[in-house]
Amino acid sequence: METKSATSTQTPTPHRLADPVFALHHGGKMAITPTVPLRGPEHLSLAYTPGVAEVCTAIAGQPDLVHDYTWVSHTVAVVTDGTAVLGLGDIGPQASLPVMEGKAVLFKQFGDVDAVPIALATTDVDETVARLAPSFGGINLEDISAPRCFEIERKLQDRVDIPVFHDDQHGTAVVTLAALRNAARLTGRTLDDLRAVISGAGAAGVAIAKILVEAGIGDVVVTDRAGVLHSGRTDLTDVKRDIAVNTNRAGRTGTLEEALAGADVFIGVSGGTVPEAAVATIAEGAFVFAMANPTPEIHPDVAHKYASVVATGRSDYPNQINNVLAFPGIFAGALRVRASRITPGMKIAAADALASLIAEELRPDHIIPSPFDPRVAPAVAEAVAEAARRDGLARV
Amino acid sequence: METKSATSTQTPTPHRLADPVFALHHGGKMAITPTVPLRGPEHLSLAYTPGVAEVCTAIAGQPDLVHDYTWVSHTVAVVTDGTAVLGLGDIGPQASLPVMEGKAVLFKQFGDVDAVPIALATTDVDETVARLAPSFGGINLEDISAPRCFEIERKLQDRVDIPVFHDDQHGTAVVTLAALRNAARLTGRTLDDLRAVISGAGAAGVAIAKILVEAGIGDVVVTDRAGVLHSGRTDLTDVKRDIAVNTNRAGRTGTLEEALAGADVFIGVSGGTVPEAAVATIAEGAFVFAMANPTPEIHPDVAHKYASVVATGRSDYPNQINNVLAFPGIFAGALRVRASRITPGMKIAAADALASLIAEELRPDHIIPSPFDPRVAPAVAEAVAEAARRDGLARV
Repeated sequence: METKSATSTQTPTPHRLADPVFALHHGGKMAITPTVPLRGPEHLSLAYTPGVAEVCTAIAGQPDLVHDYTWVSHTVAVVTDGTAVLGLGDIGPQASLPVMEGKAVLFKQFGDVDAVPIALATTDVDETVARLAPSFGGINLEDISAPRCFEIERKLQDRVDIPVFHDDQHGTAVVTLAALRNAARLTGRTLDDLRAVISGAGAAGVAIAKILVEAGIGDVVVTDRAGVLHSGRTDLTDVKRDIAVNTNRAGRTGTLEEALAGADVFIGVSGGTVPEAAVATIAEGAFVFAMANPTPEIHPDVAHKYASVVATGRSDYPNQINNVLAFPGIFAGALRVRASRITPGMKIAAADALASLIAEELRPDHIIPSPFDPRVAPAVAEAVAEAARRDGLARV
Repeated sequence: METKSATSTQTPTPHRLADPVFALHHGGKMAITPTVPLRGPEHLSLAYTPGVAEVCTAIAGQPDLVHDYTWVSHTVAVVTDGTAVLGLGDIGPQASLPVMEGKAVLFKQFGDVDAVPIALATTDVDETVARLAPSFGGINLEDISAPRCFEIERKLQDRVDIPVFHDDQHGTAVVTLAALRNAARLTGRTLDDLRAVISGAGAAGVAIAKILVEAGIGDVVVTDRAGVLHSGRTDLTDVKRDIAVNTNRAGRTGTLEEALAGADVFIGVSGGTVPEAAVATIAEGAFVFAMANPTPEIHPDVAHKYASVVATGRSDYPNQINNVLAFPGIFAGALRVRASRITPGMKIAAADALASLIAEELRPDHIIPSPFDPRVAPAVAEAVAEAARRDGLARV
C-alpha cells in the first residue's frame, strides 16, 4: 500500500526533503492498481482485445451496464479550478493538486471510494465537467470560489445524472448539523428551540444555513463582512438574498456582535475574530463552533468561559468538525444505490447517522466521532443509501 | 492486486456473469491505491491539512515542483470521445470505457505508468483535454475517428507542454517499424532497399507511412478505398494530400492490387481483403504484415505461400504487431525526462529499441518480442528518454 511508482525518480531540492511534509508528498500520494490478472496472453484477451469488445457492445446496447462492467460504479472525480484552495485563495490548478490528491486518498481510505484528482485550467467548470461525466460515478467539487460555486454546482447537476457535491458547502454542513444535534441532545435542547448565528456567507456558511433550516432550527441569522443578511440589504448576491429571505425570522439587522447577543449557537466559517465582549453576550449554555483554520474565530479557552459545548476545525482540540467524517460515506452510499443526485434528505440522514454514533459516551468534549472511528463511513453510507431509496432516487 | 472494491456490489444479469469476459469485467478492472500512510491524525496532518498547504504554496511559487510532489510525474490520461472504438465504430463515451480501462491497466502492468480513463461526452476533444491537462503528465489519445484525430492531436499538442500521443497512430507505427527492421535484418535487406504498400489511410496507415519515410524507406505507397494516394487525386483530405506528396516517389496511380505488383512489403491496416491473385504478384521474399483484426487482410496461410516473413495483429499467430509493446515504455521514457512532446526521433528510437531485443533468436516467426517479455518497456523507456535528451526536450 505504501510503494512509490518507479517512474518518479526526479530529485527535488534536497532541503525540502528534510521536511516530513515534502518527503511524504514526494512522487505524489496515490497510484493505480489493476484489479484483474494480466500475467499472460489469455488474460490480455479477456481484459483487453478481443474480449473487451463484447463488453463495449453490451454497454452500447444497454448504457446502465457501464455501472456493472467499469470502475465508474465506485469512482468519483475530485474537481477544482484552483480558485479558492484551503485558505490560500486563487493559487491555480497545479498548485491545488496536492489537496485534490489528498482528498482522493481520503476517499479511498475512509470510504473505499476510488477518486481521481482533476484540476482544471479553466473557470468554465460546469461545461468542462459535464463533458467528463461519463467517466465517473459522481463529482466532488472542491475549493471553487464563492459565489461561483453555487451556480456551477446547480448548472452541473442539471446536466448530469450522477451526484454532484460541493464538499466545501455540504460536507461542512453535514458535520456541523451532526455536531449540533449532539450538542442539543447533551444539553436537553431541541433544534427548534435554538437560534444560531453563522459568521460567514461563503460556501460553508450558505450550506450550513440551508441544512439548519431544512432540519428545523428555531432561527438562524447569517452574517457577512457587512453584517447580518436581511431582506432590506441592497448589496446582496442572489445566493445571499435567498439566504436573507429564508432565515432571520425576527428581521434582525446590524452587526455580528449585535446578532450574537442572546444567541444559542455561534457557528464560525469566516476567518474573522469575535471579540470576547461579544462572546460574553451569548445565551447561557450556548454552543460555540469556531471552525476557521488555523485560527478559530473564538479561541477555545475564551469560548469555554461562556459556552457549554465548544467545537473547532482543528485536530488538536476536542470536537473537530472535519469534512472527512461526511464525504467518503456520502458518496459511498450514493454510489451504492446509483443515486442521480444528493438530496437534502440524504444530507440530513448522513448528519443523523454521524450524530448517532455517539451514544452513552456523549460528553461536552465528545460530540462528534473521530475520523478514524471505523464505524463512520459505513454508517453514513447506509443512511444515505436508505434516504436515497426513500426519496425515490435509488436506481438499484 | 486482484481485489474488487467493496462498493461495487451490484448484481448484473446472471447469464452474463457465466461468460468469463463479463465475469472479469464485473466492477471494473482497476482501483486507486494510496501510497502514503493514513493511520492516524498525525498522518492526516501531513498528507492533508494543515501540512498540504506548504506543498501547495511551494508549487504556486515554482510550478515545476508539481512533478516532484504530485502524481502527475507518473500519470497519464487515456482519453477518447468514443467515435472509433476498436472495430466497433462510434459507440459513444460510456461504451468505450472498458477499452480505456483496459488500456490503463496495461499502462500500469507493462510500463509502471499510472493511467486514468477519460471518456468525453463531446467531440471538442482538444479544447476539453487542454482544460484537464494540469492534472496529468501526458495524454494518450485513443479511438478517435480519422481524419479528426490528426487535427485534434496537433491542436492539443500546440496548447499543452506535456506529451500528446494518439496511440492508434503512433503506437502502431512504432511497432510496425520495429517489425520491419527485424524482417529486413533477417533477410539481409535495408529499409532504403524496400518499397512498401500500406492498405489503409486512416490513423494507423498515415502514421506508419510517416514513420517509414522518416526512417528512410526506399518508397511507400498508401492506398485508401479509392486506390493509391497520388498528387493527381482531387478527392483527398489535407492529411491524405500531405501523404500523397511525401510518399509515392514513382508517381503510381491505380488500385491496391496494381501497387502490390513487385512490392517488397505489404502493410494492412484497413480491414479489407486482398485477393490471393494480387498477393501472388508481390516481390520474392516479401514481408506481409496483415494487421486487421479479427480478420487479417491476407490470411497467414496464404501469405506464407508468397512471403518470407508474415505478421498479424492477432495473438494466436506468430509475430503479433501489438501496440502494448510501445505505449507503456514510450510514456514511461517521456515522463522520466519530463519531455514536453514525443518527437519522430523518440518514436524511431522506441522502434529500434524494440527491434534490438531480438538478437540471435531472430527467425521468420520471431521478429518482434512478446508483450510479456519483461525487457520491453524498460528498453523502450530508456531509448525514448535518451532520444528526448538528444532532441533537447528533456527537462530533468
